[in-house]
Amino acid sequence: MENTLVNSNGTITSGLDANNVSVFDRSFVYGDSLYEVFRTYDGRPFGMHEHFERLWVSAALCKMKLSQTQDHLKAECIKTIKEFREKNKSDVYCRIIMSRGVGKIGFGLKNLTTPTHYYIIVQSVDDFKSAPIEKGIRLQVVGRLRNDPRALDPAMKSGNYLNSLLAYLEAQEDGFDDALMCNHQGFLTEGTTFNLFYIKRGIVVTSPLPLGMLDGITRRLLIQFLAEKNIPFVETPFKKEKLYSADEVFITSSLKEVYPVTQIDRHKKKPGSLTLKLREIFHERVLAQCLKN
Amino acid sequence: MENTLVNSNGTITSGLDANNVSVFDRSFVYGDSLYEVFRTYDGRPFGMHEHFERLWVSAALCKMKLSQTQDHLKAECIKTIKEFREKNKSDVYCRIIMSRGVGKIGFGLKNLTTPTHYYIIVQSVDDFKSAPIEKGIRLQVVGRLRNDPRALDPAMKSGNYLNSLLAYLEAQEDGFDDALMCNHQGFLTEGTTFNLFYIKRGIVVTSPLPLGMLDGITRRLLIQFLAEKNIPFVETPFKKEKLYSADEVFITSSLKEVYPVTQIDRHKKKPGSLTLKLREIFHERVLAQCLKN
Repeated sequence: MENTLVNSNGTITSGLDANNVSVFDRSFVYGDSLYEVFRTYDGRPFGMHEHFERLWVSAALCKMKLSQTQDHLKAECIKTIKEFREKNKSDVYCRIIMSRGVGKIGFGLKNLTTPTHYYIIVQSVDDFKSAPIEKGIRLQVVGRLRNDPRALDPAMKSGNYLNSLLAYLEAQEDGFDDALMCNHQGFLTEGTTFNLFYIKRGIVVTSPLPLGMLDGITRRLLIQFLAEKNIPFVETPFKKEKLYSADEVFITSSLKEVYPVTQIDRHKKKPGSLTLKLREIFHERVLAQCLKN
Repeated sequence: MENTLVNSNGTITSGLDANNVSVFDRSFVYGDSLYEVFRTYDGRPFGMHEHFERLWVSAALCKMKLSQTQDHLKAECIKTIKEFREKNKSDVYCRIIMSRGVGKIGFGLKNLTTPTHYYIIVQSVDDFKSAPIEKGIRLQVVGRLRNDPRALDPAMKSGNYLNSLLAYLEAQEDGFDDALMCNHQGFLTEGTTFNLFYIKRGIVVTSPLPLGMLDGITRRLLIQFLAEKNIPFVETPFKKEKLYSADEVFITSSLKEVYPVTQIDRHKKKPGSLTLKLREIFHERVLAQCLKN
């Protein structure tokens, strides 16, 4: 891939030459891998510590014993980002993929001939100011359910992404930008790559984690921020009708930060004033935190 | 990998040299791939047509547009098997993996720079007679549920295998050979790589497909065979207690054919006479069918 840099277990190459994964890599054969995505602001990674802590949570849920230390992996990410930024001045998207390793076909871990493999992909990321805020994002509550935590826990950020991908394709076919998924009881969980919030009469609402979703780092920081600022907030299960009648709806993710939703199914919304205020203040806080590091 | 041959989009190499998958291959990044496994008897593939028909069913469920024709892929499988058997006299296991392709990170199909990629892995398979029938297989009904068809349909044979892998690891930790999974209503669905049958008072019982399982080709052929032989058979949902009190329990798969279960949770079983009879007759039929082709 053009304009990408790939670090495969310590060897950095251009994305164009990154054709070095084994056919027997378990991420390729079974999606038996974990990953994290974080970005930089002015070249400084944001929330890297939190992302690596969550990677270790995913590993526990996946019974995957990671061979590398957090410090080693962080240093490899920083090295790759630095090398990328020597040629590209833009901020970067950094994805780290941890595969359980390479081995003979078969589930047994005794088949693994090598320890966990890591792959780091670095590429440019869009500037905060370039996001088309007025357009926002148009979401469909799709028929496809989110994975049940008793089958495959969405709290684990893994290489098994077909559930979300198929939700995304369903929404795209119907002309939407992206998808929201419910659990088997009809309660909203999350989007394909983001968490969901709505605002009604000044109260900010989001779904509780046990319904089946990722413990989003932006979600987590925003909730902390709402508490500090005494902005009314509640975590409670809700169905799609609540979104239809909400005053404002927004999503959160490490790449989109706080971002307005402008349509839910057939119901149009305007980017709301509290959403835009949260977006601005949250972004300032992110920058301030990056400067401290 | 030793003693394997890999065909990557038409190029055949030893498994030892098969380090040529792109980091941007969607099977690697998202588990966004489909697969089939079949074997040969005396060098002749069994059920290849059925496996390819099912691959196309999986592709429809996954909204994946396959670029190659069935005839082309079959010819590539046969070519790879033939080349393997020039050096190895044993029968072979053949796995074909279809990846949605290679492209920039992101769900959008517009990111795909190339059409579907195929990878064929060929290796030796154990002889039918070498299976330790008396030992059979010891299975645990694990706590982890099978994927809900409304989230990710188990009828689709995909590269998202963590649900089954984690079920397998759970059973292994508890000292069992492999796992059986229930759906959210507590009804048995299937094992990690096989379908499930039990026999009570001469009646053969298995779970209906809509509960959430693969439409196994051995399962399908066995059901057809039971009908022809007027052996009483019923497809009905059942819970684990039915297995505990069953006279015989067995599994089916393309690799294990009909194979006795010798333990379910704490309940031991002996390989039953009807199971062994079905195993023998089924195997003879498989051989006869291979000779016809």
